[in-house]
Amino acid sequence: MRVSELVQRTGTPLATIKYYLREGLLPAGRSTAATQADYTEEHVRRVAVIRALSEVAGLPLAKIRQVLAVIDVPGDDLFAALGTAVGALPPYPREQGDDLPRARAAVERLGMRWDPDYPAAAQLEHALAAAEAAGLPPTGERLDAYGRAIGALAEYDIRAMPHGAGSAVEYAVLGTALYEPVLLALRRIAHQDAARRLLEGSAERPGERPPAG
Amino acid sequence: MRVSELVQRTGTPLATIKYYLREGLLPAGRSTAATQADYTEEHVRRVAVIRALSEVAGLPLAKIRQVLAVIDVPGDDLFAALGTAVGALPPYPREQGDDLPRARAAVERLGMRWDPDYPAAAQLEHALAAAEAAGLPPTGERLDAYGRAIGALAEYDIRAMPHGAGSAVEYAVLGTALYEPVLLALRRIAHQDAARRLLEGSAERPGERPPAG
Repeated sequence: MRVSELVQRTGTPLATIKYYLREGLLPAGRSTAATQADYTEEHVRRVAVIRALSEVAGLPLAKIRQVLAVIDVPGDDLFAALGTAVGALPPYPREQGDDLPRARAAVERLGMRWDPDYPAAAQLEHALAAAEAAGLPPTGERLDAYGRAIGALAEYDIRAMPHGAGSAVEYAVLGTALYEPVLLALRRIAHQDAARRLLEGSAERPGERPPAG
Repeated sequence: MRVSELVQRTGTPLATIKYYLREGLLPAGRSTAATQADYTEEHVRRVAVIRALSEVAGLPLAKIRQVLAVIDVPGDDLFAALGTAVGALPPYPREQGDDLPRARAAVERLGMRWDPDYPAAAQLEHALAAAEAAGLPPTGERLDAYGRAIGALAEYDIRAMPHGAGSAVEYAVLGTALYEPVLLALRRIAHQDAARRLLEGSAERPGERPPAG
């Protein structure tokens, strides 16, 4: 396809496409004339990935380059490639891997493997420390409830991971960058829905509250 | 307690406490001498709430004031107060309530009440549109899996909501500001854990993969 079709298919301005080409994020099309090049479905896909990383996840150029490099050349160790690529996404917590007592206790309680070097471990420590500082540390019961729900989600996501290392890395990165906002929005709506049922049930129609869960 | 103890108990610098006092976010302590005031547990709690809103949720001063006003005077309609307070938290999506087709379809599929004026509705539309633009819109199956997990979480949170309107609003605001980061970190760790089991199971120890779920 011509670049004009790439613009249309991806809903991305020509200037942005040219910028991606110039920066080497998007491979050049196959030249068909002095001023024309032919683009493929791969280019459509790649533009979508770059925009998700840039506009949704807010990644700077250097980090986008880093993630794309892992998608293009995942190497033999898919587990490591997944970790490197997802670990390049924000947030970038300051906490260090040596001393993450809250995160470690939570992860071990939930029966997951503890890996202090994975950036999400420091991210969890930071989040739990903030909750504790605000006087709202998680009870064991809350951690268990969250762990069960999040564990089920994660199992679903990983089982749906495509075969092929590059596709798997791309899926993991997009699934993180694009679906974290979906989950947070869904949770707020589910809270509103559950609060409405609770409050309507207790205030307006006692006894008619739908069963919880 | 003296202000020095408030500093110590909350781990908040004196200059920050004075700033909160000056801006009226923190009520003045009871004067005990010309230059001394007495602070209570309420002050400790309030400083924690302000810091969570400011440092974790990234709220500007005007929004913090707005949220504190709802906590202090929730009014007769607790459901509305919860919506106003949580709706003051970021993100602030540009999408308008009139035309949110993706969010509406998702919420109705999950059997939740559709309320286009709740800010999370526009937030969900924005997130789903981004996923669609990247070529990764949710399948019905994925939506259902996410809806089940998130619904269970929300039921837990709402059932644990304290009695008393002000406390309930504070709980909802802190539960959103402080626990969204916890959830996202937990999900990344759960992904890593599930990926490890899948990949170890298939590559290194075929047949020994633990049962999924």
